[in-house]
Amino acid sequence: MTDRRGRGRPRDPETDAAILRAALELFIERGVEGTSMEQIAKRAGVGKLTVYRRWSTKEDLIAQAVEQTVSADLVPSPGDIEALDLHEIIEGVIEVAARMTATPAFRALTARMMGSAVSHPELMAVYWKHHILPRRDLATAMLRRAQRDGTVPPDADLDVLIDMMAGAVTWRVLQPDPPDAAGMLDFLKAVYRQVGLYRPSPEA
Amino acid sequence: MTDRRGRGRPRDPETDAAILRAALELFIERGVEGTSMEQIAKRAGVGKLTVYRRWSTKEDLIAQAVEQTVSADLVPSPGDIEALDLHEIIEGVIEVAARMTATPAFRALTARMMGSAVSHPELMAVYWKHHILPRRDLATAMLRRAQRDGTVPPDADLDVLIDMMAGAVTWRVLQPDPPDAAGMLDFLKAVYRQVGLYRPSPEA
Repeated sequence: MTDRRGRGRPRDPETDAAILRAALELFIERGVEGTSMEQIAKRAGVGKLTVYRRWSTKEDLIAQAVEQTVSADLVPSPGDIEALDLHEIIEGVIEVAARMTATPAFRALTARMMGSAVSHPELMAVYWKHHILPRRDLATAMLRRAQRDGTVPPDADLDVLIDMMAGAVTWRVLQPDPPDAAGMLDFLKAVYRQVGLYRPSPEA
Repeated sequence: MTDRRGRGRPRDPETDAAILRAALELFIERGVEGTSMEQIAKRAGVGKLTVYRRWSTKEDLIAQAVEQTVSADLVPSPGDIEALDLHEIIEGVIEVAARMTATPAFRALTARMMGSAVSHPELMAVYWKHHILPRRDLATAMLRRAQRDGTVPPDADLDVLIDMMAGAVTWRVLQPDPPDAAGMLDFLKAVYRQVGLYRPSPEA
């Protein structure tokens, strides 16, 4: 492989991964304002020029690091929601969400994303597109099915319901004394129940 | 008045106010990590030692600046909620909240408070005590009265409802393309209606 730029070594995927990892760590530890390209290079164990050769600003680099870390596959798919038992799907969704949202990593990233929303809207835009929107689409599919099943009122404003559900979670994890996974499970069940998406098991 | 510290001039309330104002502005613009005591002194038009004489860290100074800006009086009081017409009270609460939460200043401060929640829990603790808790107490009083009036279910978990209401607002204002005051009014009405605290006027 020839490096078209005519100098330096060809690009190394491991170097890129190390830089992205360092950028994400520093963003979470110190925020955008507390992070510099120099610190990212140092933590990744590369020279500053190696970083600048690929990313022209720390904002671009952090945005890509965020994009990469949040674009995980979602289970279930909107197709599943039509085909399978809604209550079982929701039990599964809540369990996965409780485990994820109780982690220090989720809390820390959520804080930084909220914190950057006004000063660095380009970061929130990436998070919105890759993390939030797919989850909102999933929630919309669940709520529409629940509307047909009669547990969510037909005239409910689904976007508002989703803001209440997602807002409750983000706000709860940023409060002093955030819940552990078991506490988040109870919290999520109460939230889902409030909007008409969850009914306690008969034996409970 | 004698300065007990034996040197320097007696403390000037206007200087203190200027330092606190500068600290709040810089915190909102640049976050905790992007703000230094030196910048605060410069913006306040005082020497660095003047700042250090009163506050030993930027975190202490920013915490006091936040405390001072958020501890505004709340209308209505919990007593009003018992004595007056609940629907009228809620119409008033929603209107005030819509105007406040649609301002760029509210958005920017909310972002920074959420952003500092994990890295600087002492800041969130101040915000929680002086801004959040009085508002939660107000919301609890409204929800208890609505429970007695029969529009909120008797077994509803009020803390979860409050997290959903407050979370919806903080999350909505940090999204790309946040609503203006009229949009926030509609949003808040939908949120309050969802939990059983708001019914549309008969003529609507």
